Amino acid sequence: MSLLVTGSIGIDTVETPAGRRDNVLGGSAVYFCYAASFFTPVRLVGVVGEDWPADLLAVLDGRPIDTSGLERRAGSKSFRWHGSYVDNLNEAVTVEVDLNVLAERAPKIPAAFADSRFLFLANTHPALQQQMLESVASPKLVVADTMNLWIQTAKPEVTKLLSKIDGIVLNDGEAKLLTEERNLVAAARKVLDLSGGRLKFVVVKKGEHGAILATPTEVASFAAYPTSAVVDPTGAGDSFAGGLLGYLSTQPEVTMDALKKAVAYGTVTASFTIADFSLAGLAAASRLHIDNRLTQFRTATTF
Amino acid sequence: MSLLVTGSIGIDTVETPAGRRDNVLGGSAVYFCYAASFFTPVRLVGVVGEDWPADLLAVLDGRPIDTSGLERRAGSKSFRWHGSYVDNLNEAVTVEVDLNVLAERAPKIPAAFADSRFLFLANTHPALQQQMLESVASPKLVVADTMNLWIQTAKPEVTKLLSKIDGIVLNDGEAKLLTEERNLVAAARKVLDLSGGRLKFVVVKKGEHGAILATPTEVASFAAYPTSAVVDPTGAGDSFAGGLLGYLSTQPEVTMDALKKAVAYGTVTASFTIADFSLAGLAAASRLHIDNRLTQFRTATTF
Repeated sequence: MSLLVTGSIGIDTVETPAGRRDNVLGGSAVYFCYAASFFTPVRLVGVVGEDWPADLLAVLDGRPIDTSGLERRAGSKSFRWHGSYVDNLNEAVTVEVDLNVLAERAPKIPAAFADSRFLFLANTHPALQQQMLESVASPKLVVADTMNLWIQTAKPEVTKLLSKIDGIVLNDGEAKLLTEERNLVAAARKVLDLSGGRLKFVVVKKGEHGAILATPTEVASFAAYPTSAVVDPTGAGDSFAGGLLGYLSTQPEVTMDALKKAVAYGTVTASFTIADFSLAGLAAASRLHIDNRLTQFRTATTF
Repeated sequence: MSLLVTGSIGIDTVETPAGRRDNVLGGSAVYFCYAASFFTPVRLVGVVGEDWPADLLAVLDGRPIDTSGLERRAGSKSFRWHGSYVDNLNEAVTVEVDLNVLAERAPKIPAAFADSRFLFLANTHPALQQQMLESVASPKLVVADTMNLWIQTAKPEVTKLLSKIDGIVLNDGEAKLLTEERNLVAAARKVLDLSGGRLKFVVVKKGEHGAILATPTEVASFAAYPTSAVVDPTGAGDSFAGGLLGYLSTQPEVTMDALKKAVAYGTVTASFTIADFSLAGLAAASRLHIDNRLTQFRTATTF
């Protein structure tokens, strides 16, 4: 089934206790599409500037990723982010950010992609996310991400978005901020309420502490994959979403069992991302590695 | 199999977002023994002062708990703790603490208890824990708890204790402090190393985020029981240890499967503790409730 992702494509500089990498590939849509491509073909929509290095997306070559929705905009500069995890591997400190082309008009979803059945709206302004959503004719399942900035500055738009999508993936801090609940199970349930009954599921990501999955009738809870191999957490959340929606898009129905397995696949896919800088951890993985790790994860969490 | 616990018995005053209770029953050994008593008979060893209210332990009546090791010491005052969770349900702020009788000599383990096969050394000075340990002739399994204070002020004694016991249960902050590792999987493994190969297992408790279990050859990871019913977290860690060791003492061998199920029982037993003040949550539970919740917990965490 056709899975489309829209989101950022950027040039990152990252510092972690394991070292530093300058001007490496990053961006929410990039991590998402690579992670999802282990499960299903993916359509990538995003925009970069005319300064985009020709070979920076070479890591996607040979993957089942359709990059024909990638716009290289003349006269614009690419999105750049410089972050540091030196003091805390669980939370990035933004050293510098240049939105550049991301602050301009959104990229256009090609007409050939309008028949996409699964849609992931990676983090951007919620009004833009809604605009993207309208470019896809009849999606079967739409999942979005968001961030603190939009919850603080555009909460009505975020809430409006919730009433138009099927699932949302957000982190613990965002869930608390959006709902003003301190308990994450209560927060997840309140996000469902905020959508006026539209949302089928909410996933609250807790980084090294795993994730909570809530549907209108059930709550499931997941440990993280237990690992000390953490080199660079950048892209973990987007890889998690990619594994989750990549797997889910191969399933006939969005049942609780399918959602739980999707969260588990998201968890182990992200565990490859954080084991190296930029896309190197994902690029070193295969579907077989992911399936083997899923089995290990099940063993490590089943009693 | 006979399970003995030594630890604190105290009078608590607790404030949480749900309210305040003055002069209620508390103490690590009390929570532990009530939790463990759902699984096996328990022997309680502890000391209170002559001011101890006659009816404060009435909640233990009818439980399979042998309180003949409880010393009421003339001329001494009972341990008192006043804590607040008003700002953060995950971490108590100590408003006031009066060690009183706990700062005096340790209670004596009755000769009739010297044949105990399972031993839980609840948090106290590691030198006292070792002294207690020596009073039990040939225990099959000894598990201890500790706290930041002893890691900071008596680290050599804590390390020495590790080389004389079979298992340790400590929280995430304590594990990081003891090992100077920031990653909890690495920290758990390092605690095993610190014991010089003696420890069979380490459990790192993460409160609302679950727990990590490490043995010399395996690592398991557990979500918390997903609940928004948190009234008073006091005693959660000791109830967790009580459920864990209570279950484990009924098992023929300390296998990885037994340990994982023990951690799961500890998790669900603690979920009853936090649902009400003092011992009220545990007192409202039964073994059937615990087993039913274990089944729910398995459903909520299995994919």
